[in-house]
Amino acid sequence: MISERIKRALEGSSAIRAMFVEGKELAERVGAENVYDFSLGNPATPAPASLAEAVQELTAQSTATAERSAQLHGYMDNAGYPQVRAAVAENLNRRFGTSFDFHNIIMTVGAAGGLNIIFQTILNPGDEVIVFAPFFGEYREYAANFGAGIVAVQPDRETFQPDLEDFAARITEKTKALIVNTPNNPTGVVYSPETMRKIAAVLEEKQREFMHDMYLISDEPYRELVYDGGREDFLTKYYRNTLVGYSFSKSLSLPGERIGYVVVPDEAAQAGELIQGLAIANRTLGFVNAPSLMQRAVARVLEEKTDLAFYDQNRRMLYEGLTRLGFSCIRPQGAFYLWVKSPEEDEEAFVREGKKLHILMVKGSAFGCPGYVRLAYCVSHEMIARSLPAFEKLAGHYGLG
Amino acid sequence: MISERIKRALEGSSAIRAMFVEGKELAERVGAENVYDFSLGNPATPAPASLAEAVQELTAQSTATAERSAQLHGYMDNAGYPQVRAAVAENLNRRFGTSFDFHNIIMTVGAAGGLNIIFQTILNPGDEVIVFAPFFGEYREYAANFGAGIVAVQPDRETFQPDLEDFAARITEKTKALIVNTPNNPTGVVYSPETMRKIAAVLEEKQREFMHDMYLISDEPYRELVYDGGREDFLTKYYRNTLVGYSFSKSLSLPGERIGYVVVPDEAAQAGELIQGLAIANRTLGFVNAPSLMQRAVARVLEEKTDLAFYDQNRRMLYEGLTRLGFSCIRPQGAFYLWVKSPEEDEEAFVREGKKLHILMVKGSAFGCPGYVRLAYCVSHEMIARSLPAFEKLAGHYGLG
Repeated sequence: MISERIKRALEGSSAIRAMFVEGKELAERVGAENVYDFSLGNPATPAPASLAEAVQELTAQSTATAERSAQLHGYMDNAGYPQVRAAVAENLNRRFGTSFDFHNIIMTVGAAGGLNIIFQTILNPGDEVIVFAPFFGEYREYAANFGAGIVAVQPDRETFQPDLEDFAARITEKTKALIVNTPNNPTGVVYSPETMRKIAAVLEEKQREFMHDMYLISDEPYRELVYDGGREDFLTKYYRNTLVGYSFSKSLSLPGERIGYVVVPDEAAQAGELIQGLAIANRTLGFVNAPSLMQRAVARVLEEKTDLAFYDQNRRMLYEGLTRLGFSCIRPQGAFYLWVKSPEEDEEAFVREGKKLHILMVKGSAFGCPGYVRLAYCVSHEMIARSLPAFEKLAGHYGLG
Repeated sequence: MISERIKRALEGSSAIRAMFVEGKELAERVGAENVYDFSLGNPATPAPASLAEAVQELTAQSTATAERSAQLHGYMDNAGYPQVRAAVAENLNRRFGTSFDFHNIIMTVGAAGGLNIIFQTILNPGDEVIVFAPFFGEYREYAANFGAGIVAVQPDRETFQPDLEDFAARITEKTKALIVNTPNNPTGVVYSPETMRKIAAVLEEKQREFMHDMYLISDEPYRELVYDGGREDFLTKYYRNTLVGYSFSKSLSLPGERIGYVVVPDEAAQAGELIQGLAIANRTLGFVNAPSLMQRAVARVLEEKTDLAFYDQNRRMLYEGLTRLGFSCIRPQGAFYLWVKSPEEDEEAFVREGKKLHILMVKGSAFGCPGYVRLAYCVSHEMIARSLPAFEKLAGHYGLG
């Protein structure tokens, strides 16, 4: 009596989540200090102290009256508290020179919730969504929720920027949207303004060719995680039909809280209907609204950022350490992932070799890109330091260096 | 470029939510003190003080280290924190004599999230879910998310208990589940143990007839709201294939926080696959997990209940007040809704007459049962007192009393 969809999922389950469970079991068996778990993107920096203070202030005396309690824990518009939405709009306007109003912001149950309400609002069964490989595997599940399919565009294997000729060739009558994720999970690559302008030009041309609108969906949980003095970018300036899905999971280290937002610029096609549709989708998909206390809490700490220097130190330690050992890595410019070429063609065999040395990595085929592995370096400095001798053994096994 | 699904929803939008917006606008125009808004089920009692204390304790020093922060705000299993799930299981066992373990509990983004992950886990396109009219209109949307349909069983119009002959007649080869909601929204009716045994007997017989399992899904956000000394009931004891969807929205006055759980008893068919499937559905539908801080907070206050006496006083004031004026009402035994027969056949006209007097009610057709209206009495005592003269005018308009 299990649905066909979930039966298939039970068989194919998430490689990343399976690793998460395996890692916990391995840690119990051999001791956490002997496991080098690079499998999950769980932030390694604490949430800002100001977030805890905001929660403390909001909940002090909050249950004294029914009115106060309802203002913090009650139902509100499905799109979120107007004041919270206004605070997000102002924050974006100040940082990116945009001119959003509260109505352009819909508070969501994380970016995963945001992508699902966007998909329900724009996708019909049979539609196609283009993604740039390697890509977050759950995009496929989200599209399947609405009977739509994913079409993967291959990367340039030198730079892991998208191959824009392949992109243009894969757009069809059925194409409804493109998902862009920069800074990128799993490669750490950041798309340059030039790349973004080229992507926009392709979309503009194809909109004319197929005579319907195509949305650029920017999935940007890593927006603030940019290294080497790189500028945070905001993609609505490149292309009119851009929808942004954001999450506070990484920037405020709150992945368990499921809090984020979607931005719909007024210049997007059918912006009014989209905004109303997203609020309805929040309800019909069962999210109802973004968690209320967290909405109010994040609105008070929008200026906070995670400890970029912490991740940057990890990035250097791991990239330099592995490169020195002879591994071939894409130098990360953002996010907290290192994308490593498997020393043997079958990267699943490489993952198994790593596991023998208690190194947990995620296979590239989980991201639609076999032959590579992802290392999440949102871990302690100390674990990276401890892991390097294990990587040295792994390099030795493959005769690298 | 709006999907067909959302286009239809934009046209038919939620009657209840539309009222919510209308009520706010009316309050701005004529003053909140002159509006009698009985439209939305937003709890009128504050969350318990112990809930605020739990949040304060949990967030004190929570951001001091990355480890502490991750334990409160980080990713966990998609089914929720094992300790939280264990606390819920123990609480149920103590109250209802069940014998659940942590693995029987899946923490969810409210009951709406819970119903959606249940539906994704058991429904294939074309399947049917039976509901007892009048019913919460969004069941239809939730089933439609998975290509399934709703089949409504008519009530006994005297008692608003389900018509069990009609129920048996509507079960087909396609029937996958029945949703039961007791105490009931919108009628306030509580199903007796005898009714539950009869429902179970019908399901048992039809399982044999059609040779496949059928699930009883108990949607029970109002479980604790039972008046007149009635016993809280827990439906897993009546029927083996029972799945429970619970929400803390009403019992702890936290509807905006989106926190609840699903119970899968070990004796349910394919319990192991169901439990795994529900966790996967939490991820694939974009919920990922129930909000983390709230999971930990509710686990500390599971013994708390809402102020039943507060709602009971409202129940008596409104039921007695309206009955005295000549309205025909179902006497509520639970929840916080009064189900009133429209004095004219077209209840939408009755709703409009009420609105002229600033009384906001929800039409029965929103619950698949025209000819009636729902009044949500989760409001202040004072508003009910103020509303009675307006209801008197309304009764006068219809020559009642």
